[in-house]
Amino acid sequence: MGNTINTQHEQLGKVRSTIREIFEYGNKRRMEIGAENVFDFSLGNPSVPAPEMVKKTYMELLQTESDIELHGYTSAQGALPTRKAIAENLNSRYGTAFHADNFYMTCGAAASLRVTLGALITPGAGEEVVTFTPYFPEYKVFVESSGAKLVESISDPETFQIDFTDLSSRITPQTKAVLINSPNNPSGVVIREEGIRQLAELLQERSAIYGHTIYIMTDEPYRELVYDAETVVPFVTKYYDSTIVCYSFSKSLSMPGERIGYILVPDACDRAADIYAAVCGAGRALGYVCAPSMVQKLIARCAGEVSDVQVYKKNRDILYGALTEYGYKCVYPDGAFYLFFKALEEDAGAFCNKARDYELLLVPADSFGTPGYVRLAYCVSTEQIEKSLPAFKALADSYK
Amino acid sequence: MGNTINTQHEQLGKVRSTIREIFEYGNKRRMEIGAENVFDFSLGNPSVPAPEMVKKTYMELLQTESDIELHGYTSAQGALPTRKAIAENLNSRYGTAFHADNFYMTCGAAASLRVTLGALITPGAGEEVVTFTPYFPEYKVFVESSGAKLVESISDPETFQIDFTDLSSRITPQTKAVLINSPNNPSGVVIREEGIRQLAELLQERSAIYGHTIYIMTDEPYRELVYDAETVVPFVTKYYDSTIVCYSFSKSLSMPGERIGYILVPDACDRAADIYAAVCGAGRALGYVCAPSMVQKLIARCAGEVSDVQVYKKNRDILYGALTEYGYKCVYPDGAFYLFFKALEEDAGAFCNKARDYELLLVPADSFGTPGYVRLAYCVSTEQIEKSLPAFKALADSYK
Repeated sequence: MGNTINTQHEQLGKVRSTIREIFEYGNKRRMEIGAENVFDFSLGNPSVPAPEMVKKTYMELLQTESDIELHGYTSAQGALPTRKAIAENLNSRYGTAFHADNFYMTCGAAASLRVTLGALITPGAGEEVVTFTPYFPEYKVFVESSGAKLVESISDPETFQIDFTDLSSRITPQTKAVLINSPNNPSGVVIREEGIRQLAELLQERSAIYGHTIYIMTDEPYRELVYDAETVVPFVTKYYDSTIVCYSFSKSLSMPGERIGYILVPDACDRAADIYAAVCGAGRALGYVCAPSMVQKLIARCAGEVSDVQVYKKNRDILYGALTEYGYKCVYPDGAFYLFFKALEEDAGAFCNKARDYELLLVPADSFGTPGYVRLAYCVSTEQIEKSLPAFKALADSYK
Repeated sequence: MGNTINTQHEQLGKVRSTIREIFEYGNKRRMEIGAENVFDFSLGNPSVPAPEMVKKTYMELLQTESDIELHGYTSAQGALPTRKAIAENLNSRYGTAFHADNFYMTCGAAASLRVTLGALITPGAGEEVVTFTPYFPEYKVFVESSGAKLVESISDPETFQIDFTDLSSRITPQTKAVLINSPNNPSGVVIREEGIRQLAELLQERSAIYGHTIYIMTDEPYRELVYDAETVVPFVTKYYDSTIVCYSFSKSLSMPGERIGYILVPDACDRAADIYAAVCGAGRALGYVCAPSMVQKLIARCAGEVSDVQVYKKNRDILYGALTEYGYKCVYPDGAFYLFFKALEEDAGAFCNKARDYELLLVPADSFGTPGYVRLAYCVSTEQIEKSLPAFKALADSYK
């Protein structure tokens, strides 16, 4: 067999992501001209602290629980009080009737997605997972690693809502699941209730025609990060029974490094018990023993907490207002902490390189399935936003 | 394609493990006759607290670090100070010359093993991973999930050291790696230096003959749990260059729920840089973004700490002495917290059922690849051990 190793994984480990490259350029530039002069909008890292209750709860847990209880294994599905607290929190917010055994605790959103795909997909069966542009590039990695093919449906380029004419042609007998992400990384767009309704109808229809259920997987780490009173993020299980929710507390609690999230398989989901078992089995096979224990105990007490995200709203309002005024064509971001706009030349990579002349670090959105667009992460200080505006103006002017 | 889901993962999720079943029987029995009257030796959960430094360090981190720093993403390979501290700790203990970039932080030993296998194994290539009886049953799950076949080499039934005549026939051109676990779960046996030397020679020879490197993977969560001054756990990288170490802090720090460990790919390992990249890529593909962040920061300060494991030694000495006296044929356990002995009838399952009449909960070792043997986990209170001795005697007498 020669001296082979797993080439696919070797390549995945060697290909530097665009965002990582920008990050390292930023580090170099910060050394050269000072951090305060580099306007780095490349990283989607929460910039607000965790809710105060988080530190308080950690301290209490450390002072009151025994080490063995606090740091011991939980069951593979997760600690019961944690799953109960999450069920109760969702039920109180959405009028649902979930119970602890609908939930499987995970090491964050990536694990939620990868384990769910591992439960649904049969490698070698030629199955497809449809998602919408723009989308988080790791979707492709997770879908392919579980043995399916990622199929892109091109969203409406004006609103980045679902284009049902396009979607209709992407759903085929091979479609196992449709993966949505709302509020969206990288566009910040929330899929409207009407869109979710129409999606549910289409999938019901096609499931009936093809004789098998097409599942919705909904990736929701940004659910709580919406900024306008009128923006509602529909809770998808209420519109379509066979919906599996993949959640992470990374953004709502500003603790992305702690790797804590869940998979929700509602009772109404087709083959719910089998899928829940397959989730447990996929978790086992992928080397997940349980989600980290102390943070599970924290979630049991903090399931309803959300970081103060007003600074994100403020940043969004300043940036969206200014960039629109300067002539950038921006998609209005309902939530998350990203602003998405059309590059001022066809090649977004070239545009982002030019932006560097103004010390603006932006991410070309080619790997998100939307060439010609740019992602800007505004989870930075408002001061940085304000200081960067003249640079954005000068960059726009340079194209006039 | 019909209404399929991933059957293999569904089955993995549905098959109750023997240990889990015993655990639930134990819960029922504890309700019926009181916890103090049930002698539950089924679970391999650390029963000693974490070192005092752990709580102290957590409190300090919470009080001095900013939330964003403490709970933020680390790089995928792990926080640099953490990897540096681990390298320094190993170098000071073993005279090695590791550096931070030899280490990839993981969510515990299971993740270390599964990600390493993901890096080495090419699915569909017919590769094999050899391990030794008795072995942790999840090895089969991890090896098969990464696309290889697990091959058992039968250890010497007297000493549970490697039987090189047997091993010699198991190593074939299909062998990609040999997986060792010392101190061993479930036997507690440490592979002697001579065994490691001989293993290294055999693998060097066969690698040369087959024209490709056979790697050693060494699973070492119990490295620090040895009880006799003369017992040395050889550091395998010093005997065989192409050794990849899979470690977890679960047992040394008594925090199995926190999911923190590492993969060590030494520079001397054949194709070290490619394998390290493949480890990063496999981690990505399996949904691991980074190891949990706060506990990584804890490890940076506590890499050299070990829980006080004297109670395990005490328990071992009492049990080994008494059981040998009663006529059980026990393997002398150098470390870990397991005692392994021959059932008093051929069918270990029937024996363990009979043991229940004496309120003794033991695990038949069939799923460890050693039918006819029994595993006893002595990570319990010394009081339970002492109280249980008459039951062990009565059980032995019932076979006379």
